[in-house]
Amino acid sequence: MTDMQFEKIALIGIGLIGSSIARAIREKGLAREVAISTRSSETLKRAEELGLGTSYHTSAAEAAEEADLVIVSVPVGASGAVAAEIAVALKPGAILTDVGSTKASVIQQMLPHVPDGVHFIPGHPIAGTEHSGPDAGFADLFQGRWCILTPVAGTALEPLARLRLFWETLGSKVDEMEPEHHDKVLAIVSHLPHIIAYNIVGTAADLETVTESEVIKYSASGFRDFTRLAASDPVMWRDVCLHNKDAILEMLARFSEDLAYLQRAIRWGEADKLFDLFTRTRAVRRSIIEAGQDTAAPDFGRHIKGGN
Amino acid sequence: MTDMQFEKIALIGIGLIGSSIARAIREKGLAREVAISTRSSETLKRAEELGLGTSYHTSAAEAAEEADLVIVSVPVGASGAVAAEIAVALKPGAILTDVGSTKASVIQQMLPHVPDGVHFIPGHPIAGTEHSGPDAGFADLFQGRWCILTPVAGTALEPLARLRLFWETLGSKVDEMEPEHHDKVLAIVSHLPHIIAYNIVGTAADLETVTESEVIKYSASGFRDFTRLAASDPVMWRDVCLHNKDAILEMLARFSEDLAYLQRAIRWGEADKLFDLFTRTRAVRRSIIEAGQDTAAPDFGRHIKGGN
Repeated sequence: MTDMQFEKIALIGIGLIGSSIARAIREKGLAREVAISTRSSETLKRAEELGLGTSYHTSAAEAAEEADLVIVSVPVGASGAVAAEIAVALKPGAILTDVGSTKASVIQQMLPHVPDGVHFIPGHPIAGTEHSGPDAGFADLFQGRWCILTPVAGTALEPLARLRLFWETLGSKVDEMEPEHHDKVLAIVSHLPHIIAYNIVGTAADLETVTESEVIKYSASGFRDFTRLAASDPVMWRDVCLHNKDAILEMLARFSEDLAYLQRAIRWGEADKLFDLFTRTRAVRRSIIEAGQDTAAPDFGRHIKGGN
Repeated sequence: MTDMQFEKIALIGIGLIGSSIARAIREKGLAREVAISTRSSETLKRAEELGLGTSYHTSAAEAAEEADLVIVSVPVGASGAVAAEIAVALKPGAILTDVGSTKASVIQQMLPHVPDGVHFIPGHPIAGTEHSGPDAGFADLFQGRWCILTPVAGTALEPLARLRLFWETLGSKVDEMEPEHHDKVLAIVSHLPHIIAYNIVGTAADLETVTESEVIKYSASGFRDFTRLAASDPVMWRDVCLHNKDAILEMLARFSEDLAYLQRAIRWGEADKLFDLFTRTRAVRRSIIEAGQDTAAPDFGRHIKGGN
């Protein structure tokens, strides 16, 4: 158990990410008090049953009172409303951060509400699963994962260092980035893959010539991988699409352009173009495994685990 | 160990699928003789080092001589040439089958070469990983997986029953289907997902605003899942694209149409359309897990295994 890093941490939102942070704080003893807040009294009750904090509030402002660190873990579309609600309760010297998947929009929504003397440092832990809610969280979700901080102009060094240490204590590697660049990077590595996955699952479900039961029965041949991403939280992903629009539309345009090229190569039987692309992409997978960003086990190790 | 099902089995092609079949035959003692053939003397040497058969041949015809069951496991584009080569060697009463991912094209390529008295029964085990070559195979690859047989008109019942039993002994569940319907089903559950995965990995690799090292570093946020499919055998997938062209182009057209709809919803901020799609797709994932076609463990169990 490391030393207490904070007297009181407030967690606004207690879904997959919030509840994973809560479990890690509890496990590592990072705060004396952990105030948990969510608008849904049902979710709040569940968080209490799971013993995720030391106090439970339907009012975000109430939870944020006297907190040294306030972590907002809500769908990015709700960031502005949360900031407006807690503003009055934030104590001078407190660190205010978030975990949103889009950063420029979150800064635009939250910054105007941040009182002087409060250190607002936007963040984004690159971690998650397709499950959601307080029961889906686990303490080592952030272990070995990147957490990107996108400090705004004039951020003080000491609170920035404290927040870095917090994430490192949770097992994360911490990077700093410009918000706009973060949004471009995430648009290609996360947002586009999810959108494409949602789309192909929708296309498959709508077919007349192939039944949905056939799609499910034979899904192990590739399709099922997409359904995992397409099972992610609809509210979170709706908000991501609405709040990283420009970067996502840019990546979608490039993807569609490339797909048209590939489609044409298939139509005209251009074997070399197909072979070249299919060979080039193999190298990217190798790099990801070498970088320790995925398992080298075939089929994600599902066979080994008898997962299918 | 079950009773010998065949005196001699010939395996033409000894990659991921062929070598997995070889291992399963050895493990379950399904044949007295297993003749292995591949054009690459290097691969053949490796197959012999792995002890995958009882005899090894660079000539497919030589391997097929006197075999009761001949299994062709080559890229679908090579099916016709293999059939032409082994035709003279096939003994009357022999069963000739394949494992190709497209069926109408394979039948069109092979059937004209099949001598009278030989039972040609096209097949497709829905199993595999992103790895390839004789070292990538394993005996239980087919365990709990579907194998689709697409018998041609006038197929005798007894050989069909024997081939069914063979796949069932390898742990597969066996279905029968019209070749054209098989090709449509696989186009959506397997071919389109692979093509989309290859495409998005190509798009990401070509970006100027986001470096490839950033794409790799942050790939755990969704992208890495696509790189697994995009690491599959380029020759196999080139041939699939060329030999299931019509069904693939139909599915691609529908996918692109749906993507344009989704793109428009993002551009115009149509939150409800996004939420509806993202909710609908979640149900498909549930059905796949209920059908035992994927693991229910979050993130394919990669966290649990510490895979990342």
